[in-house]
Amino acid sequence: MAYVNENYLNLQGSYLFANIARKVSDYSEKHPDADIIRLGIGDVTLPLVPAVIQAMHKAIDEMANADTFRGYGPEQGYEFLRQAIVNGDYAPLGLDISIDEIFVSDGAKTDVGNIQELFSEDNIIAITDPVYPVYLDSNVMAGRTGKAVDGIFENVVYLPTHAENNFSPDFPTSHVDIVYLCSPNNPTGTVLSRQRLAEWIAYCKENDTILMFDSAYEAFISTEDTVKSIYEIPGAKDVAIEFRSFSKTAGFTGTRCAYAVVPKEVTARTKDGKRQALQPLWNRRQCTKFNGVPYIIQRGAEAVYTPEGQKQTRANIAYYKENARIIKEGLESIGLTVYGGVDAPYIWLKTPGTMTSWELFDVLLEKVHIVSTPGSGFGPCGEGYLRLTAFGSRENTVRAVERIKTLRF
Amino acid sequence: MAYVNENYLNLQGSYLFANIARKVSDYSEKHPDADIIRLGIGDVTLPLVPAVIQAMHKAIDEMANADTFRGYGPEQGYEFLRQAIVNGDYAPLGLDISIDEIFVSDGAKTDVGNIQELFSEDNIIAITDPVYPVYLDSNVMAGRTGKAVDGIFENVVYLPTHAENNFSPDFPTSHVDIVYLCSPNNPTGTVLSRQRLAEWIAYCKENDTILMFDSAYEAFISTEDTVKSIYEIPGAKDVAIEFRSFSKTAGFTGTRCAYAVVPKEVTARTKDGKRQALQPLWNRRQCTKFNGVPYIIQRGAEAVYTPEGQKQTRANIAYYKENARIIKEGLESIGLTVYGGVDAPYIWLKTPGTMTSWELFDVLLEKVHIVSTPGSGFGPCGEGYLRLTAFGSRENTVRAVERIKTLRF
Repeated sequence: MAYVNENYLNLQGSYLFANIARKVSDYSEKHPDADIIRLGIGDVTLPLVPAVIQAMHKAIDEMANADTFRGYGPEQGYEFLRQAIVNGDYAPLGLDISIDEIFVSDGAKTDVGNIQELFSEDNIIAITDPVYPVYLDSNVMAGRTGKAVDGIFENVVYLPTHAENNFSPDFPTSHVDIVYLCSPNNPTGTVLSRQRLAEWIAYCKENDTILMFDSAYEAFISTEDTVKSIYEIPGAKDVAIEFRSFSKTAGFTGTRCAYAVVPKEVTARTKDGKRQALQPLWNRRQCTKFNGVPYIIQRGAEAVYTPEGQKQTRANIAYYKENARIIKEGLESIGLTVYGGVDAPYIWLKTPGTMTSWELFDVLLEKVHIVSTPGSGFGPCGEGYLRLTAFGSRENTVRAVERIKTLRF
Repeated sequence: MAYVNENYLNLQGSYLFANIARKVSDYSEKHPDADIIRLGIGDVTLPLVPAVIQAMHKAIDEMANADTFRGYGPEQGYEFLRQAIVNGDYAPLGLDISIDEIFVSDGAKTDVGNIQELFSEDNIIAITDPVYPVYLDSNVMAGRTGKAVDGIFENVVYLPTHAENNFSPDFPTSHVDIVYLCSPNNPTGTVLSRQRLAEWIAYCKENDTILMFDSAYEAFISTEDTVKSIYEIPGAKDVAIEFRSFSKTAGFTGTRCAYAVVPKEVTARTKDGKRQALQPLWNRRQCTKFNGVPYIIQRGAEAVYTPEGQKQTRANIAYYKENARIIKEGLESIGLTVYGGVDAPYIWLKTPGTMTSWELFDVLLEKVHIVSTPGSGFGPCGEGYLRLTAFGSRENTVRAVERIKTLRF
């Protein structure tokens, strides 16, 4: 008699973005003429850059020829791509990451969802509140969180992040084994300072805590007082796993390529107190349950690191950053309070007065046909906020801001 | 203090194909002039067919243009591909599978590795011996198998399959919750008869057992007395999940696309005896930890179902099947005993006399420079067998057979 994994039954509602999609589709069905502008899900709109397109066409032609055809590739990713990542993302920061610490995957969502498999079921995780839901849900499914009471899981340590603490969470007040941090942050669009990240690394070393560092949005950083990679902080290689993605850096949301960095120094303990390196465990996990990213896609990702690829993708980032500025300044011009939008493609809008997140979501959808993401969907401390993204076209971004300016709060 | 998932430490050695790769690379280093022919890992060698190549070029051009660019797609796969699968793989068999029962993924390895997440940790699994290692290893990692003593896991029910039972395993003698069957079989190359599969479905219904049916090799079937889909067996939709892949059907080993069928009728129980459908749980799992297959790749997979795609991919299958015939008949001509090779790209060779699998592997590598897969790598009952694959080029296949014919056993 097969028994189900009942941890799944502890999951809260369904996945945030699926809920929003359903709400928007219901609205569209009832109002087929509504000209909806989507600033909700963090999805890019600019096409892939020419360097990537060319590289993928070339790779497809290789796949059409028996002499250059590629079958199974290395589960960890082709060396050409891992080397390009090391040379392009880490060497310029003066960081010594070796290619066998780089694991190419189909998405940062996949990696941050799967990484928890390496840890014991009774480890305690800490997440910020608000938070990218995958950190939490993947641990709920694994039975690491216990049950939820009023949406709060009994075994999870929540780190409130809000305007009052400048979106920089305090340290946990009880012991945690694993902490997830995202900087630049999704959903708040804010960054943690270099100093604060150094304090986090010190905290992790002192408490034998693993830091899951999600830097999927590092390409958007312009502030100097933060880091692009957690390994810029001395000692981070002992305690931190870093997640990166081509989704936002190079518009790969529908093309699918990402990578995780698992330094050889990072260890967890066995129950009898031995140290176990995580890099060989992650390698084994990937070799057992994954067969690598399509060759064609890896060649596309490699092209991001060519001089043309860098120039072209940076131009796209600059485009989105300008969108972010337009949204931020537009909303501020009508007296709204706005966070983020400088080092990230996300604007974290404080709802006016006592309006809830979903109330503002509904107003934006129904009155001005703009899809946003309610802050409360990212956790209780997201209540009273709303996320807008800078990934729309310039035209739509400008139109959306003009529409919002017509509202009276 | 982060604790590791100690179940990983119960894994036996490292992944079979990685071991072989190391052995071959060591040999090559010492004998750089050896002209090695690889008939070991089940990896295709024919290039992608023109219909697929054209479809992917077209999709890339769409990704180069803002009007046709695609960002995040549905986690379950695009409707165009899921509909093509339903129309191309199930409707012709008279089977009523709906598109929301189809979940497109990056590989059957990924799906068969992940599916166990839906089940309670204390479920008992049954696997054949020999077996594709992922069924076992993914359950070891999840803690469902207990520890291994002499390579045998204490909580796993092994179903011996060998020449003596015509490669059709007996039913388990103790209760199991989940059973993995692969037909056409990897590694033995044999199929289960329609009658026997009907008995398995009856067994599963009677015992409330879930059948994980791996039909990644169905395109190779020519025997009439078996099924291409488990759903050809009445009642299978109540108890079976099916795994399919484009890897072997269309040469996608380096291109990565597959799918799982999770019928809405399949249920497992909660501890308090309620029935829980698995389709919504798998949907939630995929939405939480996966972001879909690249748009470009899905367009390539869709093209497999066009008339040209069907004609071209079937010609490739016929080519590999002819290779299988050449290997089978060549080995038989020197008195060797051979199984499989008719409905599958795998030849399951009985080692001569008392030779072990690895001994024959070494002889083939060192004397005639052929890479094979030792049967014992798939489980204790694989001892005394060796797997050869029909995925080489015709020229290499013929040369390999000629070389083997020079050996005296």
